[in-house]
Amino acid sequence: MRTIFKEIRVSTKERVELIDMTRDVESIVERSSISEGLCLVQSLHSTAAIVVNEHESGLMQDIVKKVQMDFPKTAGWRHDLIDDNAYAHLATTYLGFSKCLAVRNGRLVRGTWQNIFLVELDGPRERTVLIEVLGK
Amino acid sequence: MRTIFKEIRVSTKERVELIDMTRDVESIVERSSISEGLCLVQSLHSTAAIVVNEHESGLMQDIVKKVQMDFPKTAGWRHDLIDDNAYAHLATTYLGFSKCLAVRNGRLVRGTWQNIFLVELDGPRERTVLIEVLGK
Amino acid sequence: MRTIFKEIRVSTKERVELIDMTRDVESIVERSSISEGLCLVQSLHSTAAIVVNEHESGLMQDIVKKVQMDFPKTAGWRHDLIDDNAYAHLATTYLGFSKCLAVRNGRLVRGTWQNIFLVELDGPRERTVLIEVLGK
Repeated sequence: MRTIFKEIRVSTKERVELIDMTRDVESIVERSSISEGLCLVQSLHSTAAIVVNEHESGLMQDIVKKVQMDFPKTAGWRHDLIDDNAYAHLATTYLGFSKCLAVRNGRLVRGTWQNIFLVELDGPRERTVLIEVLGK
Repeated sequence: MRTIFKEIRVSTKERVELIDMTRDVESIVERSSISEGLCLVQSLHSTAAIVVNEHESGLMQDIVKKVQMDFPKTAGWRHDLIDDNAYAHLATTYLGFSKCLAVRNGRLVRGTWQNIFLVELDGPRERTVLIEVLGK
Repeated sequence: MRTIFKEIRVSTKERVELIDMTRDVESIVERSSISEGLCLVQSLHSTAAIVVNEHESGLMQDIVKKVQMDFPKTAGWRHDLIDDNAYAHLATTYLGFSKCLAVRNGRLVRGTWQNIFLVELDGPRERTVLIEVLGK
């Protein structure tokens, strides 16, 4: 059994924004020489999530809009007395900070319309995403 | 360390529908001869999610109804200009496309009320779910 | 490849409540002597979820309030004809019953503001959370 760890640094530009990390993750898997196993994509933040869906610019805007509708910035949260980003913590709690994908035949397994996104929820910021490939 | 991969094909019948995959996943784990490890259940689609909850027919209808309330089909999404299923992409983004469970003593670990469901969100369609068992 | 399994028992006190399990999970990882791999945190229940976010008392109250807003207790669900907790099943379906984190250099990998919580959604109850550490 072998493991490979790589950290990807991302500079986000908007308050809420999707960053496509698919090519970076695929490249890490392919260079790992691990042929069968798992790939964990883990945000190291509590206001930035990881999701998987289609890379289509309209849909990416829809996801941003839906998150802003479901987690409005001003709603009288207690955490906003400390730091003005309760909505971003709540959205990350719902969307999830890490995702697992299969690795098979030396490649990341994903459907045709499955891309991996960092969801910035309290940008702009510098973010770190850990990619772990584990297998043989 | 060993890995086993199996693809399960599912023909869904409704627009939004839960398909119980528990027996198939359990059977794959038991036949894998892997006694300790992990089981990844990964939908290969961006409009079909994987969730875990109780198999009770009323609850399964409640989950469908809740998803339809939270992700209504007509809401003026940009992606609907390309393909009429933005709601299904949004619901999959929230519910998640893959889930991990433990494998212990040669069996899938799940609580009494934990069943594994494919959530069809844009049916009827032909779906593929990848089951990976990794361990020793 | 090695695996370690530990079950953590939690007695919850409120109907909806966050229980911080971070120290227990970290301790299990450190005592496992596994230096590189994955840690799976799996609730064995369909009305108790696992989430990762910041341990700040105001935010923890915000998460409870948000869940109660999004999954109100009385909404005419069919499952309530059998057991008065459909809202808790629905919330668990959305928030997720298991989460994966990386293990690196013998330690659980988490960001500064990432703590691991059991989310009780139908308490008070006795809950069991399975921690699996898999790696080398």
